[in-house]
Amino acid sequence: MKDIQKIEPIAYIHTDFKEKFGVPRQSGRVEELIGKIVFEKKYRISESLKGIEEFSHLWLIFGFSKVEKEEWSPTIRPPRLGGNKRVGVFASRSPFRPNKMGLSSVKLLKVENEKENGDVLIVSGVDIIDMTPIYDIKPYIKYTDCHIDAVSSYADENFSHKLDVEFDNSLLNLIPDDKKNAVIACIKDDPRPSYQNDSERIYSMAFSDFDIHFKVDGKKAKIIGVDKK
Amino acid sequence: MKDIQKIEPIAYIHTDFKEKFGVPRQSGRVEELIGKIVFEKKYRISESLKGIEEFSHLWLIFGFSKVEKEEWSPTIRPPRLGGNKRVGVFASRSPFRPNKMGLSSVKLLKVENEKENGDVLIVSGVDIIDMTPIYDIKPYIKYTDCHIDAVSSYADENFSHKLDVEFDNSLLNLIPDDKKNAVIACIKDDPRPSYQNDSERIYSMAFSDFDIHFKVDGKKAKIIGVDKK
Repeated sequence: MKDIQKIEPIAYIHTDFKEKFGVPRQSGRVEELIGKIVFEKKYRISESLKGIEEFSHLWLIFGFSKVEKEEWSPTIRPPRLGGNKRVGVFASRSPFRPNKMGLSSVKLLKVENEKENGDVLIVSGVDIIDMTPIYDIKPYIKYTDCHIDAVSSYADENFSHKLDVEFDNSLLNLIPDDKKNAVIACIKDDPRPSYQNDSERIYSMAFSDFDIHFKVDGKKAKIIGVDKK
Repeated sequence: MKDIQKIEPIAYIHTDFKEKFGVPRQSGRVEELIGKIVFEKKYRISESLKGIEEFSHLWLIFGFSKVEKEEWSPTIRPPRLGGNKRVGVFASRSPFRPNKMGLSSVKLLKVENEKENGDVLIVSGVDIIDMTPIYDIKPYIKYTDCHIDAVSSYADENFSHKLDVEFDNSLLNLIPDDKKNAVIACIKDDPRPSYQNDSERIYSMAFSDFDIHFKVDGKKAKIIGVDKK
């Protein structure tokens, strides 16, 4: 077949999410979430990043690497619609699509030189699982990428739904200082599928080296345990 | 190698540009440019578009199909910088990148059912050559894709540079009515590389079934010929 392309990872992104649960539903929802992009040896060329720090945001085209190749469906049920209304796969950002590619915009914080990895990109606002392959990185160009008048159907939500998070210091202090805000922000953003509302249910979010257990009652999330793996 | 993906076209886009010269430098620059997205037989499933018309804009991930696989360079010279300053390929939207994928946002005008092609998408603001393979279509989600505070370095231009277009009716009337505005808008947008400024040079833009010949003197473009192919 014509125009089949073989694409290979230029880099991998390292994040604190080892599993899907808890990953923000889109990029930018949780600014506190940091990712580190490490280039593959073949593409570890400082010159290829020349001038990138003059852009505030980047596009990442990445692979939904946990989804099987043949696993796609013409319609999907977006969690935001309560999980029972179907929309077309091309009217969604679902990973279960013909070509398993995701698209996220992230903030570029800095380019850092690491002895072991060469130049890496430190980004924030990620919504991507740890060790996800990155196929392309492009600068965000405001005049062509930012449509302030866009209408986004069921995805036209705002950020007004947030949970209050009760996190006892005895538990919170098990987490390193530089990750505390990110954990709280992720739970605040309410990682539950929107059709679940059982105040007795215990949710467990794998974050960095920890499993964070919590319950949600109404608008209040209460952390009930933190296990170090 | 791990995570190599084979991606295949889900659709092809039909536009009036058979060649690169004249294609707007980014999507949305010339709203008048219309594209028609025709799905491959395997993906011609009306359900997969369910709800798409409730989005005003779409992302297209497409292939730079005219660029050879191995043809990429760590740095490129953006035309906008006069063609003599180099930036890293990941600080640019150049087609000469490791994985030959482009990213454009377009306006969705409508879904149309054609006897021969099934449901097709009619979009505007395209910057893509005719018969380019499309690998993915995603809805534009304003809250996560639109960064009004983004800083875009050398690409932070506005639309203030426009040419005045002198197009005698005798020539203009050779072009069908529904394409006149698009042709004028493309030339108005100044398709010349920004380092060229020779008032005697004749430029030829292939558009639809026509070759449009013009000269540019200062801020004035004068159409000097229209050939039907």
